[in-house]
Amino acid sequence: MQPDIPATDDTRHVDAMHMYGESGHLGRVPGRPASQVGMRRQNLALVLRTVAGDGELSRADVAGRTGLTRAAVSSLVDELIVSGLVQEGAVTVSGRAGRPGRTLALSDQGPAGFGLEIGVGHLGACVVDLRGKVRVWLRVEGANAHRDPGEVVGELARLAEQARAEAEGLHLNPLAPMLSVPGLLGRRPGIVAHAPNLGWQDVAVGDMWPEGDAPRLENEANLGALAELWRAHAPGNFLHVSAEAGIGAALVIDGRLYGGARGYAGELGHMAVGPDGPRCACGARGCLELYANQDAVLHAAGVHVPPGADPMTVLTGHARAAHRDTLLAIERAGDALGIALADAIGLFDPAAVVLGGAYAELGAWLLPRIRRQLETRLTVRSFDPDSVTASPLGRHGPILGAALHTVQAVLHNPASLTH
Amino acid sequence: MQPDIPATDDTRHVDAMHMYGESGHLGRVPGRPASQVGMRRQNLALVLRTVAGDGELSRADVAGRTGLTRAAVSSLVDELIVSGLVQEGAVTVSGRAGRPGRTLALSDQGPAGFGLEIGVGHLGACVVDLRGKVRVWLRVEGANAHRDPGEVVGELARLAEQARAEAEGLHLNPLAPMLSVPGLLGRRPGIVAHAPNLGWQDVAVGDMWPEGDAPRLENEANLGALAELWRAHAPGNFLHVSAEAGIGAALVIDGRLYGGARGYAGELGHMAVGPDGPRCACGARGCLELYANQDAVLHAAGVHVPPGADPMTVLTGHARAAHRDTLLAIERAGDALGIALADAIGLFDPAAVVLGGAYAELGAWLLPRIRRQLETRLTVRSFDPDSVTASPLGRHGPILGAALHTVQAVLHNPASLTH
Repeated sequence: MQPDIPATDDTRHVDAMHMYGESGHLGRVPGRPASQVGMRRQNLALVLRTVAGDGELSRADVAGRTGLTRAAVSSLVDELIVSGLVQEGAVTVSGRAGRPGRTLALSDQGPAGFGLEIGVGHLGACVVDLRGKVRVWLRVEGANAHRDPGEVVGELARLAEQARAEAEGLHLNPLAPMLSVPGLLGRRPGIVAHAPNLGWQDVAVGDMWPEGDAPRLENEANLGALAELWRAHAPGNFLHVSAEAGIGAALVIDGRLYGGARGYAGELGHMAVGPDGPRCACGARGCLELYANQDAVLHAAGVHVPPGADPMTVLTGHARAAHRDTLLAIERAGDALGIALADAIGLFDPAAVVLGGAYAELGAWLLPRIRRQLETRLTVRSFDPDSVTASPLGRHGPILGAALHTVQAVLHNPASLTH
Repeated sequence: MQPDIPATDDTRHVDAMHMYGESGHLGRVPGRPASQVGMRRQNLALVLRTVAGDGELSRADVAGRTGLTRAAVSSLVDELIVSGLVQEGAVTVSGRAGRPGRTLALSDQGPAGFGLEIGVGHLGACVVDLRGKVRVWLRVEGANAHRDPGEVVGELARLAEQARAEAEGLHLNPLAPMLSVPGLLGRRPGIVAHAPNLGWQDVAVGDMWPEGDAPRLENEANLGALAELWRAHAPGNFLHVSAEAGIGAALVIDGRLYGGARGYAGELGHMAVGPDGPRCACGARGCLELYANQDAVLHAAGVHVPPGADPMTVLTGHARAAHRDTLLAIERAGDALGIALADAIGLFDPAAVVLGGAYAELGAWLLPRIRRQLETRLTVRSFDPDSVTASPLGRHGPILGAALHTVQAVLHNPASLTH
């Protein structure tokens, strides 16, 4: 089944491949050598991005736009076609300079991004082609909190195998998978250091992976932010807030994720909304999550979630039905989020704030309260309330970000696949 | 008079010449052309930095360390000497390879950094030589809040002239001055958009400057952070907090000031320490400044500041005398600062937090409370409490930062003076 997710056709070539900070988990694009080989790599990427950026281009068009010779473009295009990155389409009609040629397009077969996800209430696997279209989408609902990590990883690996098989049936070749986790990663690869909402501590996902490609791990809030960055026209500096069981933020600076000195940046859920308030599971008082995470809202709304049901679907249903206590609970959460976001905006001065994750679905009710708090609290250096929006990716952001990460890496450095 | 300020001899060549973000007020180092002229510029800077970095080097030593030929080094050194950037010292003794030569050093005459400051309670002017030593230090106490801006600027200009004359008497040539202001700058140069503690709104300092070089303006919190960065061994990612009448922060990322999307980053004073608390002058409730700025502490301590006295000196005097209400007031301020800093650390994940400005003088009493709050609030991703320190530059940070900015710019790009 394919969900109704906004396509990411207009892949933006932002420099989001590596993170700021000293211990970012996302990899670096290799430096660019000035050698002949290096030149060819660069030109390969240039041609691929030109094809990606504009539909309906012929080889002659690509030569015209890149300034490369037609012979060079042809050789590079051939290499990209052989590697399965580019496809030829119909013969272009007249009206263009030179003899007509075939149009070029990113391939909808061949190499593809492969995203996996462990959520508190589900597992997911998806495959996204080079055009940014979701081609395989598998999701299994089920509570993972406090479940044996080995079991969860085993089930996810089976789901990944199923997704791979479906993708291969579509002539797609999923590349190395990336796994979105709702927690903090360890210093060593493959380790979930701390995922409080799963009840995980120092879980070696990489070691538990049964066979084949163990996925690279990344934090869900970071991946949600990257998905938002790639989705469309998010500005260079923005704050991406994702909320569900936990509440996290990701800071994108000049189109790059900011990781902080230890890779811990973006903690929003334990900001002090009420320093004298109730005690949080973390030990501190009055943390934002106590007022604004999913459990807090459900509790304040007095809403019961039937076993197996999706809490956010239940909540939005109640909100749409104008259930009074639900609306009050969401408003309270919006106020708390607004107070924390006012502080975060004051510190970071982002151009925009994007609400992602499950809470994007509550945007219609949350945003007015958040905006009102921002208007109240940010007076000296006011912030346009309309710069706070809900992402249309919502809960699908992290897993899409995981798959798109690979797609972006290929578009940046196609030579990694052609050599 | 020369104050007891830590020397900045070991000038670090960090890339702090330009800010992150879209509207940083500090200038950019020009790009590096690959031409012959560009090569000479780069080599000039390389030689100057080599001389600056290590004492007691001869031309031969510089050639050895840079990989440049002796002839090239000699030509470059001659240019640096003619421009007054480098001096020759004694003939080096034996024990080194090659024939002995004269030692080279950054000049303690010639071009110098020129810092100016408008404080709420003082005006300042200082001249710092290329070695980072403070050579001229003038400071006039006097309340500037709600005084006619033209009068203040006129008095500062006279002070600047006096400083320039004293510097020239020391054979120093103060370069274009930079002015530290306790407020928000306008988009156009030379404008103080908003300095609440001075009562200034849209003050065109540049237009009011009587004659000669009108200074470039920069925010005091930013300059304090830069001074701290250059002073010594501040880590690449840190948060600099400066507090006095207002409370501001500066974020240094990878050795560069982070300005934010609009140049507004670092607002700490209006973070919500008590969202249901008393109303701040900004219109919001429970802002940090209500609990922790100088007036709040003086008020809570019940301390009366005699006319003309320096409030911080009075406060530290009372604290040293173990005046009970003063200690309680400082502790309350430390708690509030700790709560706000815990939030800021969670978001930004700095390697260290440096307390600068006047509050550095209260460090002995503030730091234990700040550290306790950090231990209480940052549990999941703990932060070493010893990573919060008070800067020895204290209140002198911003004006030193203003002067050192020019020194650093010269060390980065000496060709700006030699051509």
